[in-house]
Amino acid sequence: MSEPQPARSRSHWTVHSERPVYENPWVDVLMADVELADGTRFEHHVVRTRHAASCVVSRVVDDREEVLLLWRHRFAIDKWVWEIPSGLIEEGEDPAEAARREVEEETGWRVADVTPLVVFHPVGGMLRSRYHVFRAHGAEYVGEPTEQNEAEKVAWVPLDEVPALIDSGQIATSSSLVGLLRVLVDRR
Amino acid sequence: MSEPQPARSRSHWTVHSERPVYENPWVDVLMADVELADGTRFEHHVVRTRHAASCVVSRVVDDREEVLLLWRHRFAIDKWVWEIPSGLIEEGEDPAEAARREVEEETGWRVADVTPLVVFHPVGGMLRSRYHVFRAHGAEYVGEPTEQNEAEKVAWVPLDEVPALIDSGQIATSSSLVGLLRVLVDRR
Repeated sequence: MSEPQPARSRSHWTVHSERPVYENPWVDVLMADVELADGTRFEHHVVRTRHAASCVVSRVVDDREEVLLLWRHRFAIDKWVWEIPSGLIEEGEDPAEAARREVEEETGWRVADVTPLVVFHPVGGMLRSRYHVFRAHGAEYVGEPTEQNEAEKVAWVPLDEVPALIDSGQIATSSSLVGLLRVLVDRR
Repeated sequence: MSEPQPARSRSHWTVHSERPVYENPWVDVLMADVELADGTRFEHHVVRTRHAASCVVSRVVDDREEVLLLWRHRFAIDKWVWEIPSGLIEEGEDPAEAARREVEEETGWRVADVTPLVVFHPVGGMLRSRYHVFRAHGAEYVGEPTEQNEAEKVAWVPLDEVPALIDSGQIATSSSLVGLLRVLVDRR
């Protein structure tokens, strides 16, 4: 193997304009008029949705670390998956507050403090949306989840079982993967 | 903390129909007519895009593991990020072949075999799109990248530096996070 030349790059595209082609409070589709450094000019879609917040909640029971997960069906992808609590951030809401709220609404467990874990973009090339993943240690059970249509079950799952759940496709959505894997790496 | 009751669940939503509200070869927006188990019925968007493939390519130099990354600007989110090679899967193309093709087109490095690492959905609640992440060991430099508008630079980055790049927001898109973190967890 010989060393590569640096890629002659024109990765910073110039955006001349963006116009909406579909507008809605939940999803906007924009068409961007973009130009590459070599002069190539074309139209490229940008989808815009509301930002989301999620939280990896863990507790230790008998020296074993467990994480709070929901088993749910996602109709858009027609799949059953384990997910960390997550949801859209309300207008004007702080992402950390949204994460705490979603944990309680979806699971019935309340967390005290959440700390930022990862901020990411689920589709960097096309989706203008930011996902805030938080981390919380310990939780207090305060009653049945108020969001009754979200999960088939809520469970504390041993963190050690997470890699196998990923490999079998039972954890398969981005916030849950990013959050849980980030926590597992920290534990090394 | 007392144990929670299982969440009374209605997480499997019935989809009565879906109708397109915006159609395009790159992005379709559908409106789904969905019903929850409690009878609540409402409309929910589904965005459909082409599936994507990406690959974590690593090599070992002087006992140090390095991964092949691109430093690029993503106009949709207006951010500079390190990413693993990735791209859309062509019509009829095998995901593994798409991953190999993208590695070579975007970096100028050719990989022999790729093995499946993770398959995931970037937005489980709304986006009907599947991301296939592969893994390859070793690569041969075959010339300048043919995709000249993709990256500002192509570099072999020590895998040990990846957690700090994530924490500083320089790795911030889903395929790269999921693929690199999954590899780091395996290394434990």
